[in-house]
Amino acid sequence: MSLHKKFEEITVKSEQIFKGKIISLQVDHVRLPNGELATREIVKHPGAVAVIPLLDDKMIVVEQYRKPLEKSQVEIPAGKLDAGEEPLKAALRELVEETGYRTDNIKLVSSFYTSPGFADEIIHLYVAEDLVKGEANPDEDEFLECEAITLEQAQQYIREGRISDAKTIMAVYAWQLYRLTGRMQ
Amino acid sequence: MSLHKKFEEITVKSEQIFKGKIISLQVDHVRLPNGELATREIVKHPGAVAVIPLLDDKMIVVEQYRKPLEKSQVEIPAGKLDAGEEPLKAALRELVEETGYRTDNIKLVSSFYTSPGFADEIIHLYVAEDLVKGEANPDEDEFLECEAITLEQAQQYIREGRISDAKTIMAVYAWQLYRLTGRMQ
Repeated sequence: MSLHKKFEEITVKSEQIFKGKIISLQVDHVRLPNGELATREIVKHPGAVAVIPLLDDKMIVVEQYRKPLEKSQVEIPAGKLDAGEEPLKAALRELVEETGYRTDNIKLVSSFYTSPGFADEIIHLYVAEDLVKGEANPDEDEFLECEAITLEQAQQYIREGRISDAKTIMAVYAWQLYRLTGRMQ
Repeated sequence: MSLHKKFEEITVKSEQIFKGKIISLQVDHVRLPNGELATREIVKHPGAVAVIPLLDDKMIVVEQYRKPLEKSQVEIPAGKLDAGEEPLKAALRELVEETGYRTDNIKLVSSFYTSPGFADEIIHLYVAEDLVKGEANPDEDEFLECEAITLEQAQQYIREGRISDAKTIMAVYAWQLYRLTGRMQ
């Protein structure tokens, strides 16, 4: 048995429930390791990128309304992959669209699944430095506001709940580790 | 306008698409700040807890199969909130169910949304110390294996892709910061 197939759940039947603009939903009927049957509710997502944009001693963040939470949130720039798009290219695209900044100095920090219990969404997280300011150009249904914040402000925003999503809290941890150790991981 | 309602998207209509055992799905038709209409695909989730269980210089992790990813993954112990359950109680319950360990020394590290673009899932992340070993007792459709790993092993698992979910990578960062600064955030 392959290392990554331990406790494998074999698909007996897969029902497509919904196919939307961004996500789709399926229910898989599976056979468990003990032979019993169970169902798994699975959201399929195209994948996304996020960028930690560092400018001197600050990080560039964007505030936007998050309908699932019914509130606005401060997050690092991020967005979905277009069909067939390379993550690195998507990261540079989202950075300039949302903040106006461009750079040639961008590195992968990590790629992670956001909710492996019910979704296949993966986020490729990059750090961008040596930023050069240009013109922001968000999508037509995207309303957001940029801000440059210090590490202390970021930690304050976490305490206040203005920053409260996994990728941005992870970015703040990675940034703090970068300050302490010179490395992002 | 409230601080947390900037760029608010007003619901015009909400369609329930699916109601499952764990998640449900709705499509909200919204009015954007510029007056245009758009749709938002939203997954509703009951919320979850996760625990960073520290035992001497090691962290207790569990390996399980993640159907949405079609592979097994090493993660910190975690699970959904039962209806009306307090997060702290759920964290202690999941810890003992999945690892057998009990403790009175447990603290909230942070609460975060995993995928604010399409889901309302929140994870309450705790750190548990002074662990006392007992009997594990996973749910009947849950197959998992416990392991105690060092920080260096955790970092190696991240490089190998055996650890690749947001909450566990965040846990490893938080643990590393705890070592360096004596604080989890």
